Amino acid sequence: MKLNKQIAFAVLMSCLLTTPASAQAAAQVLPTPHTVSPELQQLIAAKPLPYWNDHPKNNNEWKAWVNNVGQEATKRLPALREHLGVSVTQGKIGGVPIFTFTPQNLPQANQDRILLNLHGGGYVLGAGESGTQEAVLMAGIGKYKVVYVDYRMAPNFPYPAAIDDAISVYRELLKKTPAEKIGVFGTSTGGGMSLILALRAKAEGLPLPAAIAAGTPWTDMSKTGDSYFTNEGVDNVLVSYDGWLGDAARLYAGGHNLKDPMLSPVYGDVSGFPPTLLTSGTRDLFLSNTVRMHLKLREAGVPADLVVFEGMSHAQYHMNPNASETKFHFTELEHFFNRYLH
Amino acid sequence: MKLNKQIAFAVLMSCLLTTPASAQAAAQVLPTPHTVSPELQQLIAAKPLPYWNDHPKNNNEWKAWVNNVGQEATKRLPALREHLGVSVTQGKIGGVPIFTFTPQNLPQANQDRILLNLHGGGYVLGAGESGTQEAVLMAGIGKYKVVYVDYRMAPNFPYPAAIDDAISVYRELLKKTPAEKIGVFGTSTGGGMSLILALRAKAEGLPLPAAIAAGTPWTDMSKTGDSYFTNEGVDNVLVSYDGWLGDAARLYAGGHNLKDPMLSPVYGDVSGFPPTLLTSGTRDLFLSNTVRMHLKLREAGVPADLVVFEGMSHAQYHMNPNASETKFHFTELEHFFNRYLH
Repeated sequence: MKLNKQIAFAVLMSCLLTTPASAQAAAQVLPTPHTVSPELQQLIAAKPLPYWNDHPKNNNEWKAWVNNVGQEATKRLPALREHLGVSVTQGKIGGVPIFTFTPQNLPQANQDRILLNLHGGGYVLGAGESGTQEAVLMAGIGKYKVVYVDYRMAPNFPYPAAIDDAISVYRELLKKTPAEKIGVFGTSTGGGMSLILALRAKAEGLPLPAAIAAGTPWTDMSKTGDSYFTNEGVDNVLVSYDGWLGDAARLYAGGHNLKDPMLSPVYGDVSGFPPTLLTSGTRDLFLSNTVRMHLKLREAGVPADLVVFEGMSHAQYHMNPNASETKFHFTELEHFFNRYLH
Repeated sequence: MKLNKQIAFAVLMSCLLTTPASAQAAAQVLPTPHTVSPELQQLIAAKPLPYWNDHPKNNNEWKAWVNNVGQEATKRLPALREHLGVSVTQGKIGGVPIFTFTPQNLPQANQDRILLNLHGGGYVLGAGESGTQEAVLMAGIGKYKVVYVDYRMAPNFPYPAAIDDAISVYRELLKKTPAEKIGVFGTSTGGGMSLILALRAKAEGLPLPAAIAAGTPWTDMSKTGDSYFTNEGVDNVLVSYDGWLGDAARLYAGGHNLKDPMLSPVYGDVSGFPPTLLTSGTRDLFLSNTVRMHLKLREAGVPADLVVFEGMSHAQYHMNPNASETKFHFTELEHFFNRYLH
C-alpha cells in the first residue's frame, strides 16, 4: 500500500498548498513500467501536458489557446514527412479542405485504395496541418494514400459542422472509389467521428466503408465511463474530463444532448458495421470509451478487434515516431486494412 | 479533481486512524458505472474481498486459510450445475485427479472435442471441487465437455507440481483425442497455466492445443506490470499484489525465479502458439498481465483476441452466473472454440 500512501501524501500536499490539481500529483508518483520501449517510457514519465487544465472563457480565448497548442504540433511535421518519404498535396473535396498524403512507394495493391483520416483534438484542436501527424505516419509506415479532412470545428462551427464535412468528403470519394476500397481511421475525437461517420452513412443510405480503425475513440462525450474516474490523474495526456476536454465537449455540442449517437456513437445502432479495430492503453482516460464500444460491436456481431497498450495514456501511440509501439500500431492498421479492403 | 480529493481524504483518514489499508478506501469512493448489468454493478460496488490482505505465516496457517476460503466457493456449485443442466463425474487421468463436466445436450459437433480447464487461485486456492465454477459455466453455457484438472498446489507441492499435473493430463488426453480437437482455458493462475502448458508442450515436443482462452492470466508473477500499480486498490477482488497474492507467488515458486517463463509465461517464446483469446477488465489488477501477453502474441504473429470488460475487477466474469457479462463471456469462448477446434 506504500504507493497509495505516497499518492495520498502528494495529493494532500497539493490540496494544502492549493497548487496544481491533485491529478498531476497522482500521475507522477506511479512508477514508469520498464517493459515498454524507452521512447514510450519517456512519454509515460512525462509531466501532464501543461495545458490540460486550461479553461478558455470565450471564443477569443479559445482561438488564442488553439493557435498556441497547434503551433507546437505543427513544427515537427515537415521533418516527419521527409523522414518517412511522404508527399503532401492540398485541395478540396466536396467543398471541404483536405490534405492528401502519399508514400514514396505506394504498393500496387493500394493504388486505388483510400484511407480517410479524421483527426483528433476535441473538436477544437488540429486545424489545418497541425492535426496531420497520424495521417503522415499511416501513409509512411502503412503505405496507404491518406485523405485527411480539415473539418470545421468549435467555437466558430459547432455540431454538426465537423461530421457534416467528413460525410461530404466521404460522399464525394464514393463517386470514384467504391466503399469496399475505402477505410476510415482516426484517433480520439477522430476515432469517435470515424464511428459516427458509419452511423451517418447508414442513416443517409450510403454504403459503409470497408473497415474502421478507431484509436481510443471519444465514444461518450458525457462523463460516463469508468476510466473517466479510475484513470483520472493517471493519464498524463488528457488527465481529466474536467480539464479543457469537458469544456470542449460542451462547446462543440452547443446545447445538444451529449449522449446523442451523432456525438457519442456508443449509443448508436452499430448493426451492420464493417470490421473495426480499436486501440487504447492501460492508463488511457478513454479506456472505457474504447472497451464499451468494442463490447457493443461484438454484441452486435461485428468483427471487432481490440489492442490495449501497456502503460499508455491517451493516444501516445502516435506521439513519438521512433517508439516501437508506434511502428507496431501502424503496422497493425496496415495489416487490418490489407485484410478488409478490397 | 473532486474525486481524487475524495480519495485523498479517505486515504488520509485511513492513514491517520491506522485502520484498513488505503487500497480499500480508494476502491470504495469510485462511482459504480451504470452502463453494465445490475449484477456486475453489484460486484463492482462490493467491498474488497475480506481476505485479500491476509498473510498466513506457515504451512498450517495456509491450509486453514485455504479451507476457509474454499468452503465458501463450494457451497453454490451443486445448484449451479443443476441450473445449467451439467453433470459431473470424478476420476483420474495420467494419475491426476480430474472432474469431467458434461452438458445435458452436447452438440453433435462437440461429441469428440474436449476443453481442458485449469482453475485459478494463486496456486493455493481452488482445490477439489471448489475451483470448478468456471468449468461448470463453460460446460453449461458453451456446451462443451470440460475436463477439469485438480492439480497439486502449494504449500505442500510447490513448482513445478501444478504444471506437471496439467501436462500429464494433456499428454494422456492426446492418446485418444488429437490436439486439433482440444482447447485449453482457465482464469487467473489457470489462465497463466494455460499459456505455460503450451510452452511446456513445445518444450516436450507435444502437439499444441488448437486454441487457448486465457482469462485475466497471471503472466507475470513478479510485481512487474503497470496495472499492479495503477489498479492497486481499484480492483476489489485481488486489491493488491502485496496482499495474499504476492505471498502465494513466492510460496509456490519456492525460490525459483518468478520471471522464469514456466512461472511467468509473458517471458516465454510464444512463436507457433495457437489462436488465443484473452479477457480482462478496466479495473483488473491483472490488466497489464493480460495486455502484455496479448501484445507479445500479436508481435509473434499469433492470432490473438482481447476482450476488456467495462468496470470489471479481476475475473468477475465468472462470479455471478446471472450477469449478462457472464453469458457474453462464455458465449465468446464458445464461438472462439467452435471456430478453431477441428
